[in-house]
Amino acid sequence: MSFVPSQFDDVSIATIRTLAADVVGKANSGHPGAPMGMAPVAHVLFSRFFNANPKDSKWFNRDRFVLSNGCALQYILLHLMGYKLSMDDLKAFRQLDSLTPGHPEAGHTDGIEVTTGPLGQGFGNGVGLAIAQAHLAATYNKDGFDLINNYTYVFCGDGCLMEGVASEAASIAGHLQLGNLIVIYDDNHISIDGDTAVAFTENVEQRFLSYGWQVLNVDNGDSDLAGIYNSIAEARQEKNKPTIIKLKTTIGFGSKVQGTHGVHGSPLKADDIVSLKTKFGFPSDQTFHVPQETYFAYEEIAKRGAALQQKWNSALASYGQQYPKEYAELTRRISGKLPEGWEKNLPVYKPTDAAQASRKLSEIVLTAITPSFPDLLGGSADLTGSNLTKVKGTVDFQPPSTGLGSYAGTYIRYGVREHGMGAIANGLAAYGGIVPFVATFLNFVSYAAGAVRLSALSGHRVIWVATHDSIGLGEDGPTHQPIETAIHFRATPNLAFWRPADGNETSAAYYVAITSESTPSILSLSRQNLPNLAGSTIEKAVRGGYVVQEESNEALTIVSSGSEVTIALDAAAKLGAEGIKTRVVSLPCWLVFDQQPEEYRLSVLRSGAPILSLEALSTAGWQKYSHEQYGLPGWGASGPYQKVYEKFGITGSNIAAVGKKVVEFYKQKGGEVVSPLVKAFTL
Amino acid sequence: MSFVPSQFDDVSIATIRTLAADVVGKANSGHPGAPMGMAPVAHVLFSRFFNANPKDSKWFNRDRFVLSNGCALQYILLHLMGYKLSMDDLKAFRQLDSLTPGHPEAGHTDGIEVTTGPLGQGFGNGVGLAIAQAHLAATYNKDGFDLINNYTYVFCGDGCLMEGVASEAASIAGHLQLGNLIVIYDDNHISIDGDTAVAFTENVEQRFLSYGWQVLNVDNGDSDLAGIYNSIAEARQEKNKPTIIKLKTTIGFGSKVQGTHGVHGSPLKADDIVSLKTKFGFPSDQTFHVPQETYFAYEEIAKRGAALQQKWNSALASYGQQYPKEYAELTRRISGKLPEGWEKNLPVYKPTDAAQASRKLSEIVLTAITPSFPDLLGGSADLTGSNLTKVKGTVDFQPPSTGLGSYAGTYIRYGVREHGMGAIANGLAAYGGIVPFVATFLNFVSYAAGAVRLSALSGHRVIWVATHDSIGLGEDGPTHQPIETAIHFRATPNLAFWRPADGNETSAAYYVAITSESTPSILSLSRQNLPNLAGSTIEKAVRGGYVVQEESNEALTIVSSGSEVTIALDAAAKLGAEGIKTRVVSLPCWLVFDQQPEEYRLSVLRSGAPILSLEALSTAGWQKYSHEQYGLPGWGASGPYQKVYEKFGITGSNIAAVGKKVVEFYKQKGGEVVSPLVKAFTL
Repeated sequence: MSFVPSQFDDVSIATIRTLAADVVGKANSGHPGAPMGMAPVAHVLFSRFFNANPKDSKWFNRDRFVLSNGCALQYILLHLMGYKLSMDDLKAFRQLDSLTPGHPEAGHTDGIEVTTGPLGQGFGNGVGLAIAQAHLAATYNKDGFDLINNYTYVFCGDGCLMEGVASEAASIAGHLQLGNLIVIYDDNHISIDGDTAVAFTENVEQRFLSYGWQVLNVDNGDSDLAGIYNSIAEARQEKNKPTIIKLKTTIGFGSKVQGTHGVHGSPLKADDIVSLKTKFGFPSDQTFHVPQETYFAYEEIAKRGAALQQKWNSALASYGQQYPKEYAELTRRISGKLPEGWEKNLPVYKPTDAAQASRKLSEIVLTAITPSFPDLLGGSADLTGSNLTKVKGTVDFQPPSTGLGSYAGTYIRYGVREHGMGAIANGLAAYGGIVPFVATFLNFVSYAAGAVRLSALSGHRVIWVATHDSIGLGEDGPTHQPIETAIHFRATPNLAFWRPADGNETSAAYYVAITSESTPSILSLSRQNLPNLAGSTIEKAVRGGYVVQEESNEALTIVSSGSEVTIALDAAAKLGAEGIKTRVVSLPCWLVFDQQPEEYRLSVLRSGAPILSLEALSTAGWQKYSHEQYGLPGWGASGPYQKVYEKFGITGSNIAAVGKKVVEFYKQKGGEVVSPLVKAFTL
Repeated sequence: MSFVPSQFDDVSIATIRTLAADVVGKANSGHPGAPMGMAPVAHVLFSRFFNANPKDSKWFNRDRFVLSNGCALQYILLHLMGYKLSMDDLKAFRQLDSLTPGHPEAGHTDGIEVTTGPLGQGFGNGVGLAIAQAHLAATYNKDGFDLINNYTYVFCGDGCLMEGVASEAASIAGHLQLGNLIVIYDDNHISIDGDTAVAFTENVEQRFLSYGWQVLNVDNGDSDLAGIYNSIAEARQEKNKPTIIKLKTTIGFGSKVQGTHGVHGSPLKADDIVSLKTKFGFPSDQTFHVPQETYFAYEEIAKRGAALQQKWNSALASYGQQYPKEYAELTRRISGKLPEGWEKNLPVYKPTDAAQASRKLSEIVLTAITPSFPDLLGGSADLTGSNLTKVKGTVDFQPPSTGLGSYAGTYIRYGVREHGMGAIANGLAAYGGIVPFVATFLNFVSYAAGAVRLSALSGHRVIWVATHDSIGLGEDGPTHQPIETAIHFRATPNLAFWRPADGNETSAAYYVAITSESTPSILSLSRQNLPNLAGSTIEKAVRGGYVVQEESNEALTIVSSGSEVTIALDAAAKLGAEGIKTRVVSLPCWLVFDQQPEEYRLSVLRSGAPILSLEALSTAGWQKYSHEQYGLPGWGASGPYQKVYEKFGITGSNIAAVGKKVVEFYKQKGGEVVSPLVKAFTL
């Protein structure tokens, strides 16, 4: 195959360029330069290679497109191809409640695969999308049935390549030999601070070669359509390496200030837009002008995609005849349904069962559910033996040539790359058919904060197995002991931060995490052993908070989470022995508890007696659920964990003493003690 | 110069190896493998090259050593060289309140430059230390006075090199041509998950060449002392490139399980330790044995260092004769004193002064103080024009060969590398004589969370200029609008998160940030204009919180921060007009407010009327300072900022309506309204 020019190429590219100027111009906000510069490659990619059906944006074997340097370009393309994005939507770019917010958001706009804008994330997402394809292909494709064979295309700029998250993702992508991943690097030599000469002078080609990528060059990305075409075609031929195409473009091509950072992040001046349109032979007095030829060219793309999907549907049906079992599983996974009855395998515990670390309880859950849950694709950032995330007998996801596993393997060795791992997991979840989990110490989930945030914003079901979740990790010390981490993630919208106290709560956390289709979860797990509680059940714990030890006419309620619930129970027993009746509430997940009916919440954290919170972390945020807060006043300490707990007074006897102070204080204060949940208004 | 073997080399190296086994063995926790493998290079570096005076660990021109893969090795070396670290301290490794916590902590243990352990950070710190040296050398060295000429040596492992933070720092270090930086990469092919073949197969040499580094190889790091020597000597000769020495070692050298991940993170078995000692000719029944020859060899190092410092002191004195002005400034900076009277240049505002964005107010502060404050070394992660961090007339910190600036320049172009920037800034602060500030959007400070946390733990005075700090950034939308960010950093111990409301508060934030020698600060600044408040002064704002509008017998207090204080005042005026007397409190910095005397705090957030908090962010944490909380219930939105504020009800009229509800609610509730600061106990 070689490039065959079409009479519509030039007009289509000019349409994208002028539309970019108009879209950003009308919004009076945005980035016109990159869409104007990348219009040719976008046009060649979509008109010649891209397989997707705009009328069914969820067709499973579609090519995935990620605009890592997220901007208006993607909206323009979606509109031209006929996705559910009208010209009015383009005109509402960056306006309140439009389908065209400042940066593309997955789940918000038809055809957007992943949320981009924060630099480097889309690059990592692309690696995840490519891993998902390779994995599902290896698992389900059969001779004569190349059902899952899509490509992932990522556009990115200098900014993305400077970000560490992209470096991490690129290195693992090279290791994994992801031949289905094609990155087009907009090498325009301009970032916000001006010429990249001021900060970005590395040899990008050599760097990607070092990662094991194929690197192709297009020297004239502004007008060499054949060169662009050939490079993409060549990239598609390379089956054992991801490809990056270094495409030299002129940012803001066609503008009077093209090639400068003046066109990066602000609208073009009015006279510049006039001149631009004149240059391209467009009516200079019209805005948002799309020539019929352009629409026509893009309708052809849409038709091609619809036909492809039809053909694919037939192939899938034949596959069903020949491989009914695989067909059933694959179509179930595509539909987003979970395996029937998977939750019946969740372990249930009695108080007489041995105390275990919740990281170990997590391993027991994974071991129990994995055999009947092929959707799980897990991994760790080089802490497998500490996170306990590898189920015995599972195979590594590895290129077959390494001899270390296969693409059908379900365990990913992420290396020490937390941020890349988080972004990759977002891509895995976005692909569909996969329930990804990833693992590191809780403290190092913070390295991936940028990805975790987008997971929550996009509604990707990513499960973080975050072990070593407090001073309870002991000897590793303050550098590894989270303090601020829990409240950071609890305050993130649509992110379920679970801190289970025992076996049943760990099972509950997995249950809710897996059944919450559009919410990521962090499971905060202990290194040290935790006894199984008499008052816990999965049914209670799935509500996010419950009374683990009831008392009538209590003098005090202690609310706690995770490894400190046992200490709260110990304190309650000591107080009870002195006649101070003390209830204990376990609150493993604030987000889920907050979603319970008010009546339930007020029955758990009820009025009538003071509530004291206890957690071996910062107390920040606990004021929402308690009158008084006990926790860490600052950093942790290095030492055997029991001694560290003692140092900070987190022991049954000290908490009993604190509890007494609280009871006394509220007695002195007088008046009714009202639940902290009783408020003047709700947001 | 070439390598001259010493009779003490072998015994010294064996001492380090056996001590590592004993230190970790006694603690029954830690990482013996890396110290055992890196003992030869550590010995060659310290015995032949390293310039430092153990008796004065703060000597300014000392070589800096960073153990990025932070472990027991550093403690062993410090002890042998005669720093304030006794054999008993080694025996207390990883025990509570010892000088030898799980990972090295700056400020905690004599001779530790930066806090390491969280992987990749030390690498970034090393780049910062090297930048500091290059900058101060270019600023103060004169012909015949090579006063500042130390090297920075970083040891790191596979884990560090996999981390994105190290990739970012390495790329900018190459761009900056830091010839004074020498990284020794412990290429032992083992990480926690086993052989690096499972996840880390990139070509490290090629990667660092792509960054513009010199790469040297030592194939036998276990015993080729001459090879190690020659590579370090060669690295020191290269003045225009940082060097990485790829040193092949055997992890856990000498152990029965050497070369496997079995020696990475757990103590050696007892019989293995016996065999190890026998192998090296050490008494197998003794622990913590240090032969006199080893102490002797290391005393020589210490003597050399003391002599060097003496010589340097003389040179400095002569310099003082010849260059009294530079001498005065340099010695002031070395002493840690700030320039006399710098704070007199802080801008002061009247309410009649024009409304301005606090990012602009920050620029005005920087512009005002920079001319008499040479210690400031600032920069941005490619958002200079948005963060407004470059003072007119300042020169870029750039290698002279680029023609873009000089090493004496005070403005660093970090590129889009937030995490690397944060780690570098920690190194700049650790070097001394420099007050670093760095900049990005507040939302992207989260990319650098790992570095920010260590800044706070280590007590590095790093100032983050974090602009675009809420939905007030408008069109860029939810991907860029912080929600959880403020509470994340407010909950981090020893981190001052400032959110100033106007000009005087911005000046106050800078004042406290700059005068807090051991506390990093994040200045959270608006994109949109903010009027200057009638009730603000620098003197009030430096207390972290104050009454910006007083009322007696108030019905309500609204407590707010940053851009919402003006909205709170608007609401208060509307309520006042309806006869509902409303006070307004501005709380720009929780950490600093919490440090005020109780009496003051209770006078600001006093009992008697309900307190309503208002912030265009998550309400998490505000329950500590208020009875009721108004903020964002979830993600922000893309649109012109006024419309986004309206959407979420953060307007004077809606907050007045909410305030009325609050007043009514507490009236109904009855009883005394007690300040939320009144508590049963303090932590």
